[in-house]
Amino acid sequence: MIDGKTLHPLGGGRTLAAMSTPSPAMSPATAHEATSNLPELLERRRAGFSLEAPFYTDRDVFRADMTGIFGTYWLFAASIAEIPEPGDYVTVDYGPYSLIVLRTDEGGVSVLHNVCRHRGARLLPETQGTVGNIVCGYHSWTYAADGELLHAATAPDEKFDPKCFSLKKAHTRVVAGLIFVCLAPEPPTDFDDVIPLIEPYLAPHDIARTKVAYQQTIVEEGNWKLVMENNRECYHCVGHPELACSLFPTWGLTEGMIPPHLEEVWERNQAAERALQERCDRYGLHWEVLEELDTRIAGFRISRESLDGAGESFSETGRRLSKKLLGDLRDFRLGRCSLHLQPNSWFHFLSDHIVTFAVYPLDEGRTMVRTTWLVADDAVEGTDYDIDELTNVWKQTNLQDKAFVELCQLGAESPVYEQGPYMKSEYQVEAFINWYTQRMREHLGVVPAA
Amino acid sequence: MIDGKTLHPLGGGRTLAAMSTPSPAMSPATAHEATSNLPELLERRRAGFSLEAPFYTDRDVFRADMTGIFGTYWLFAASIAEIPEPGDYVTVDYGPYSLIVLRTDEGGVSVLHNVCRHRGARLLPETQGTVGNIVCGYHSWTYAADGELLHAATAPDEKFDPKCFSLKKAHTRVVAGLIFVCLAPEPPTDFDDVIPLIEPYLAPHDIARTKVAYQQTIVEEGNWKLVMENNRECYHCVGHPELACSLFPTWGLTEGMIPPHLEEVWERNQAAERALQERCDRYGLHWEVLEELDTRIAGFRISRESLDGAGESFSETGRRLSKKLLGDLRDFRLGRCSLHLQPNSWFHFLSDHIVTFAVYPLDEGRTMVRTTWLVADDAVEGTDYDIDELTNVWKQTNLQDKAFVELCQLGAESPVYEQGPYMKSEYQVEAFINWYTQRMREHLGVVPAA
Amino acid sequence: MIDGKTLHPLGGGRTLAAMSTPSPAMSPATAHEATSNLPELLERRRAGFSLEAPFYTDRDVFRADMTGIFGTYWLFAASIAEIPEPGDYVTVDYGPYSLIVLRTDEGGVSVLHNVCRHRGARLLPETQGTVGNIVCGYHSWTYAADGELLHAATAPDEKFDPKCFSLKKAHTRVVAGLIFVCLAPEPPTDFDDVIPLIEPYLAPHDIARTKVAYQQTIVEEGNWKLVMENNRECYHCVGHPELACSLFPTWGLTEGMIPPHLEEVWERNQAAERALQERCDRYGLHWEVLEELDTRIAGFRISRESLDGAGESFSETGRRLSKKLLGDLRDFRLGRCSLHLQPNSWFHFLSDHIVTFAVYPLDEGRTMVRTTWLVADDAVEGTDYDIDELTNVWKQTNLQDKAFVELCQLGAESPVYEQGPYMKSEYQVEAFINWYTQRMREHLGVVPAA
Repeated sequence: MIDGKTLHPLGGGRTLAAMSTPSPAMSPATAHEATSNLPELLERRRAGFSLEAPFYTDRDVFRADMTGIFGTYWLFAASIAEIPEPGDYVTVDYGPYSLIVLRTDEGGVSVLHNVCRHRGARLLPETQGTVGNIVCGYHSWTYAADGELLHAATAPDEKFDPKCFSLKKAHTRVVAGLIFVCLAPEPPTDFDDVIPLIEPYLAPHDIARTKVAYQQTIVEEGNWKLVMENNRECYHCVGHPELACSLFPTWGLTEGMIPPHLEEVWERNQAAERALQERCDRYGLHWEVLEELDTRIAGFRISRESLDGAGESFSETGRRLSKKLLGDLRDFRLGRCSLHLQPNSWFHFLSDHIVTFAVYPLDEGRTMVRTTWLVADDAVEGTDYDIDELTNVWKQTNLQDKAFVELCQLGAESPVYEQGPYMKSEYQVEAFINWYTQRMREHLGVVPAA
Repeated sequence: MIDGKTLHPLGGGRTLAAMSTPSPAMSPATAHEATSNLPELLERRRAGFSLEAPFYTDRDVFRADMTGIFGTYWLFAASIAEIPEPGDYVTVDYGPYSLIVLRTDEGGVSVLHNVCRHRGARLLPETQGTVGNIVCGYHSWTYAADGELLHAATAPDEKFDPKCFSLKKAHTRVVAGLIFVCLAPEPPTDFDDVIPLIEPYLAPHDIARTKVAYQQTIVEEGNWKLVMENNRECYHCVGHPELACSLFPTWGLTEGMIPPHLEEVWERNQAAERALQERCDRYGLHWEVLEELDTRIAGFRISRESLDGAGESFSETGRRLSKKLLGDLRDFRLGRCSLHLQPNSWFHFLSDHIVTFAVYPLDEGRTMVRTTWLVADDAVEGTDYDIDELTNVWKQTNLQDKAFVELCQLGAESPVYEQGPYMKSEYQVEAFINWYTQRMREHLGVVPAA
Repeated sequence: MIDGKTLHPLGGGRTLAAMSTPSPAMSPATAHEATSNLPELLERRRAGFSLEAPFYTDRDVFRADMTGIFGTYWLFAASIAEIPEPGDYVTVDYGPYSLIVLRTDEGGVSVLHNVCRHRGARLLPETQGTVGNIVCGYHSWTYAADGELLHAATAPDEKFDPKCFSLKKAHTRVVAGLIFVCLAPEPPTDFDDVIPLIEPYLAPHDIARTKVAYQQTIVEEGNWKLVMENNRECYHCVGHPELACSLFPTWGLTEGMIPPHLEEVWERNQAAERALQERCDRYGLHWEVLEELDTRIAGFRISRESLDGAGESFSETGRRLSKKLLGDLRDFRLGRCSLHLQPNSWFHFLSDHIVTFAVYPLDEGRTMVRTTWLVADDAVEGTDYDIDELTNVWKQTNLQDKAFVELCQLGAESPVYEQGPYMKSEYQVEAFINWYTQRMREHLGVVPAA
């Protein structure tokens, strides 16, 4: 007999749990405990560490997230390039919410809940299309683009007031062509203060004069917060060989963190940054890092950063992927203007194309991620850009990220999972978690443990 | 920046919720609230409006439905044409219940729970077949058609009494060839009073001398109550182009509801009704509308109504679909004798064929619907009837209805879903909901709010 | 009208429930009751009868099983033949637990929880493979075979102590080449007393000198306890025609239970037993039945029994399935040395091959069963053994058992399911249930009803 205990002594009277648990008072909840103690979990959240398992696995926490985050804050829905003509619409779902995002005849954007006021049928079951009025497929109740009920046959009596049965609306903001929605009765006002900070970075890329070149929608078998966390660090970017070509290997590192073998790269990176900033100053483009990821309600980070190689786009060589510059831009070497927004989106604005990323939670263990590539509306497929080349880096990167997220979801299911420490290069992950925790504490009226 | 708020002002300090919620006291429950407050939901049910979301989405409500409705009232199971010979059986499942519906050697019908009394194995896993005795596939425990345990090997001791291990039975009634079951210990007696009211309408079509021409079983991704509600109105029949050929476009309308463009149709409809009634009187067939959908425990509606066109059957032209008359009927122009029963069935008895519809709930979001076409037992396929022609209208209609039900289920999942008003043409839907609500209030001892 | 009630009278005022329920105080819980009353169910467990439905269907009971049984007792994981070389590993999952079973450079076995201590990613997502160190695919945290954290980049500060982030370990015992694990902080000690009782039976078959010929992994749609119960009786073996060839038809019967038509078989069986025992005595092999299935914590049964026909192996004729004897065995006619262990495994050690069976619960209604065939490591496929012939009996038997288990799971879902009586030939099933009940009572501090 081989005695495993001898090979792997646990020592004295200490238990496995004792060895790894920080302190008895912090004994972490596992994925399989029946937990309706979300307030307690939020109260004891440990700074510098990932969340306890139920945040990723528990159905009740997911429901609380849908109310406390997705039902409360501004969310990215789509861009106006996806609904270029009057009557064009897309539908987007955030957990149990389904919304119609519709271009109006006046060129504005109307966002309506996708639920008929008669018998509750989903009005537009397709993910995109074009409509005149919105007509329910069940009993032909007919609504205007602003949600007004225009027609309903065989009303029960004259007391039936169509005005009481308009479609429910969501609040809407269109920022440099990006459509944001808020499902709360009273949207938080902080976003209005953030808009003028970020709009100048994005406006020169002029989404109104772009078109959708390609859209990829994938389902990741992981909680939406794991999807966001994964986006917020490049500590794992060795797992993204295609993306790594255009990112400097020193990305995410700062002075003093540079290992000897990367010192030469660091010099190249620094030189590229200086050149990019001079170029931006010349064209009047913003490049300064603005970062308020967890220090305000509309948490965000925006910056313009250089790319490696030719410095133009997300290609293996760093060269352009579309031959047409966006908007009135006059140079391809503009790096990437990247925007991170809490809670559900990120964006890369380049000189030749834009990539938008939207996160739509499905349930506690599944999340839909939609990636959209926009190019200049006069760019010709096959001539000015090749779809496979244009989309290759992020298509591959998304699939790699999906695999990472799914490994974390599997891990969180284990009863022995416990919170791990965030490393230096994960400060944006921690900022996301701080933002989330603070919002949920406010939502539930929780005071953090001292 | 385009300001969506400006485009779609919500106005003053009023919230989205305030705009659409009838009154604070009625704030509706959403699909995603943890709800064990079924009694409260039943207490505050709003007359004239559809149910709150949890009735369609909540697992606990579904479980309560299975006990309070399917475990308590008379249910349609199958017709004797499906089990014509001794030993023939079908199995039918109502949510978690599985039943064997068996033709006995004496020609009667025995309904037994499909659960072995030894280790609980499902006895007959197939949906239909023929047996002598019922032999469990696991350990060969053998039961007679009446459930008596005939054989079990290696009994533990002489105290083992086979009489204690008969299969559990369900109560059974066979009404004009339609088999009804009741899973309650004491079945409600009201059904016995309804039987003599409906049997005379159905008996002349003589199911005992029919055979199954075709059977379609579909799963609808919707709560069983949505399936029933959908059946109880023709407000949506513009979505049934095939069915609409044989229904008068004025179906469901009454004097005073006729729009000008349908006045000519209305005259034709009225004339056809009068002709049908005279014809029925001549043959001694019942045609009067009897309707007690929510005014008694065994809620029902029965009538004989004219069909458009040739007035014979559910075809595009209204002409017969089988050349053989049923039973001793002497005329093809008998319209349709239609029976609606609470809680799970409806039927059309025509001169040339019968269609039965049975609803079997699977879970809170899925329902099985089985449609069976019966023709005269001496009708020859290919000569007297063509299966595709015979089944076309209801096959198409069922698939259209499935789509409608599924849109409603999706809508009910939204947190902004709220009860909508029933229109005039939906009075039978409301009657179904009234019946359901009343039964569940009785089941849970709930007194409605004043 | 045919009156089903007349055909199947329920009699007087007695209800269906009254007819079959032993006593009002014992009214059984159904699969669809919301049950958090596991202690009550355990308290009132009825001796001689199968468990109440929630034990097979309830998610909360499953979670309690994972903690009270799988998180507490010794479990079979794999055999060392599956990880013959240093660095070879398999992963095994018990419900939510995922484990890495790794052969170390020193030839020992290390069992580690498959959860990275950084962000919780599953470390090794494949079911088998070979590694040097264990490197997380997400951020390259690198662990030694004993779980020590060897490398993690960009630590937050100098207070980061890698020793605090070793992989969590499970206790391990290797018994005659069979690897057992215990997930509890303090493993129960009784298993250490059982090891010397069973090891002498198994050691001569020398797993260290075998190789995996084939492995079958199937998912049964049934609770893990139904899988175990099914294994613990041959009352259903008429459903295993392939297996029945090598088992005596009198298997499981004892003196006094032999029906007349099997008396000749019984004589042959008795003679074969005597011959086997003499042969074993000659070779110094153990054959005595040791049976303590429910009388100790490490419940087990071990024996060596004769096979029918040629008496060598699990073939139609009873002849050998591999031409190479295992270990230093000198005779093919050694019957089968069979080991039953609580809670999740059984084994057959023959002269020419070994079959191991491991049960891995997935959720309350699904269980993975892995069967592994081992042959002498110098046996040559195609020459010494044919994989189809070697595996035929148990492949077929497993699929038959899967069907049986699934029938029982379906039956347990019915609200009318109630506990059935164990027959004489099912005493090992009852022993398993006794063992399970006793362990769960201890886990939850339940005192059985008097």
